[in-house]
Amino acid sequence: MPPAGSSWRGEQLSLLARLLHSRQSSQAFEDLLTEAKDEFREARSSGKLDETQEFERGRNLELLQQGFSRQKNLDSGLVGELATAQAEGYRLWQEAKENADFSFFAPALRKLIALRKEQAAQLAEPRSCWETLAQPFEPDLTKIRLSELFAPLRRRLPELLETVRGWEPSPRSKWDLDELVQQKLCDRLLKDWGRDQSITCVARSPHPFSTTLGPKDFRLTTRVVPGQPLSCFLATAHEWGHSLYEQGLNFQSHQWFAWPLGQATSMAVHESQSLFWENRIARSFSFSERFWHHFAEAGAPIDSGNSLWREMNPLTPGLNRVEADELSYGIHILIRTDLEFALLEEGLSVDDLPEEWNKRYENILGVVPRNDAEGCLQDVHWSEGQFGYFPSYLLGHLISAQIAEAMSDGLISLGIEAQDPIDWCIRTSNESMMLSWLRKEVHPYGRQVNAEQLVQKVTGKPLSSNAFLKYLERKLEQLSPDT
Amino acid sequence: MPPAGSSWRGEQLSLLARLLHSRQSSQAFEDLLTEAKDEFREARSSGKLDETQEFERGRNLELLQQGFSRQKNLDSGLVGELATAQAEGYRLWQEAKENADFSFFAPALRKLIALRKEQAAQLAEPRSCWETLAQPFEPDLTKIRLSELFAPLRRRLPELLETVRGWEPSPRSKWDLDELVQQKLCDRLLKDWGRDQSITCVARSPHPFSTTLGPKDFRLTTRVVPGQPLSCFLATAHEWGHSLYEQGLNFQSHQWFAWPLGQATSMAVHESQSLFWENRIARSFSFSERFWHHFAEAGAPIDSGNSLWREMNPLTPGLNRVEADELSYGIHILIRTDLEFALLEEGLSVDDLPEEWNKRYENILGVVPRNDAEGCLQDVHWSEGQFGYFPSYLLGHLISAQIAEAMSDGLISLGIEAQDPIDWCIRTSNESMMLSWLRKEVHPYGRQVNAEQLVQKVTGKPLSSNAFLKYLERKLEQLSPDT
Repeated sequence: MPPAGSSWRGEQLSLLARLLHSRQSSQAFEDLLTEAKDEFREARSSGKLDETQEFERGRNLELLQQGFSRQKNLDSGLVGELATAQAEGYRLWQEAKENADFSFFAPALRKLIALRKEQAAQLAEPRSCWETLAQPFEPDLTKIRLSELFAPLRRRLPELLETVRGWEPSPRSKWDLDELVQQKLCDRLLKDWGRDQSITCVARSPHPFSTTLGPKDFRLTTRVVPGQPLSCFLATAHEWGHSLYEQGLNFQSHQWFAWPLGQATSMAVHESQSLFWENRIARSFSFSERFWHHFAEAGAPIDSGNSLWREMNPLTPGLNRVEADELSYGIHILIRTDLEFALLEEGLSVDDLPEEWNKRYENILGVVPRNDAEGCLQDVHWSEGQFGYFPSYLLGHLISAQIAEAMSDGLISLGIEAQDPIDWCIRTSNESMMLSWLRKEVHPYGRQVNAEQLVQKVTGKPLSSNAFLKYLERKLEQLSPDT
Repeated sequence: MPPAGSSWRGEQLSLLARLLHSRQSSQAFEDLLTEAKDEFREARSSGKLDETQEFERGRNLELLQQGFSRQKNLDSGLVGELATAQAEGYRLWQEAKENADFSFFAPALRKLIALRKEQAAQLAEPRSCWETLAQPFEPDLTKIRLSELFAPLRRRLPELLETVRGWEPSPRSKWDLDELVQQKLCDRLLKDWGRDQSITCVARSPHPFSTTLGPKDFRLTTRVVPGQPLSCFLATAHEWGHSLYEQGLNFQSHQWFAWPLGQATSMAVHESQSLFWENRIARSFSFSERFWHHFAEAGAPIDSGNSLWREMNPLTPGLNRVEADELSYGIHILIRTDLEFALLEEGLSVDDLPEEWNKRYENILGVVPRNDAEGCLQDVHWSEGQFGYFPSYLLGHLISAQIAEAMSDGLISLGIEAQDPIDWCIRTSNESMMLSWLRKEVHPYGRQVNAEQLVQKVTGKPLSSNAFLKYLERKLEQLSPDT
């Protein structure tokens, strides 16, 4: 969209938000819901439903009722105002970022925070403001639980960072690959990973994303970043993970498409799936061993699995979340999460945000943004008043690692006799076995459960940071120059 | 969209078509219209409106009433069925084209023709079926008028073609340009032509197009065709012409955006504007004289204005409409128009279409498609049952030429003392003067008038093929090897 198009777009988005809200909170919707509940009750009492049907329909209705009640609590004026403020916020954030000057965006952020607080107040849930806003991303998440889950990371990640800081930086060559060559490598990757061209499309966009537009219509985008020859490849792996998850949701038959049960369990679970394919698979040593020759043939200065693997895993704490390595990534999230608590519940003034941001980056990561564009303006989320999303990224790392452990056990019980069955699958190009397991054990649940319930079901253990820290420690050991 | 996504998309399109139809033919719409007419009558009789306001509001209401009456005449079942058939037709056409086999598409075309006939019957206008279907593209067009306008072309174009056939083909070198280089040349062109980046965006798509998404949101796309280094450049010029027209429509103030008066006069007028910038400007000798060094610097084997100009103007009658030169383009349209008459009104059987198509191509252009993909499957229009559109392309050539003559006079009266003022503007990089003239004389009318009325207003003469044939004859003279 050209910059001057944004005000009209803002008006459209505001209108759509109001129309949607009025529909989702209408008497007609409530009547349909009541009818559906009556029908369900009748079918249940007459014994027409098997156990699965009974659970699925009941849960679907419960989630529809929850969504309706939330919408009903919201004032339509607020809904419209919020949509306008989001469009305006996004526009000003872009301007601020271009000028590397937070002050362009500060008034919009102040307004968004006020509106979000009002929204949380209207929703009147038995939760704090931040918790209320986080619900659409992570159902049932509480700050207390989050602090339990993140506590070991707060302690351990800085220690690991300290270790890595002591390492001699390995000399890295500057290289790049032609756009078309990068595209071919991505095509190769997705072919290896079983892409079905009849239901998936790949395109380019400034920010990579994955989306689903119909029961058999999955799209993903990637981007080519000059000077970062692996960026497009890893973004493709990441978005493919998101897409595979959506492809595995329970709506292939149309039945649950557009219904709550056909939707992702949570954003953390979504992220766990993208991170699994990006980090656990594409950044693994075994994958590099198997795939490096494609890079070599494409003209990259890669002469072994080890050299590709090192390129895939730079360990350099930086200012940017999106470009962060697996170790420092969590720190970026911890900083943002704390700042959201502070902004929404602890009275941090918007004007003080840049300073607070920079202070925390210096203290924990040892790097200081040169300007606001590198600092608190880097992410899009706050530009639209999205609060409560960031933790999902880090929870995704935790879930991915814990699910990978369960997958290993699962693969062993399927008869794979290897010490590390996931590595075995990668080495032998048997990604399809991992996918089958995910398709059976993880993907189909959708919103039948929340993220923690899913993890408990899949792994038999409550969610924790253990698996992730274990994975990280092992990886650092392998990457250590002493190894 | 991935292929398997099309059935869901078809359902969505059908739903949208039915919703739109039900809204546009609703009692609520009629009531609003009645109210607006009452209000208008009152304001007029109380002398509150100046002459312009009176005309504009009256005309706007007249067009709204016309649109309402048309929608009201249509049965909602037909509307939904047609939308589904269009989606299905498009899908099958793609399949047929890939397989170069018309029989894949024939049943869908048969259905589309039946539904379109039914649509025309329901509209019950005092016009033939084909004429009724052509109205949305060319308001007030009749077959009789079309046959008058095209008669000189039917006679003269084949004669000119015969002349050109006698020429020794000039030896042409095979060359190509890198994608990025082509993009830079296009950027350069649009910069020269006064592109305002705040309201326009340029992207890529398989088929170039131009669209307007808001009062300050103009988008165009282009494509890079391997082996055709000028295709992207000329497509950009063409789409930019469309976009300039939309940018000049009378809705910059929001006032008429989404109202009939803010819409293009007709598709032929739209096409005249794209063709003006593509053919009259970008393919002119003066433009090549001025621009060739950019191509030379970009690495193209171009060493003079003349060499670029020859590359821009190949004269090779071929099978493809989109790739046709200015001379044979008209023939492609005449063939399609006659076939549409035959299919809709003269009982030509769908099964006989490929044979009829090929016969006409052989007789008139002397070329025979090797298969249906090169033949009657080449254009997208019929795949969605769009009949009545093709003449607009050729009428656009006529209008462009006639408007260019008036522009020349206009520029002279502005004080430009040159024998050919348009060429003068091109040579001296004064495209902005031509645009200013178009912005004043052509663009703002929108649907205040139909295409013929616009031409009469702008040029003081009825629309005819004279200017176009004169332009063509002069151009061929210049391109002749004897010159």
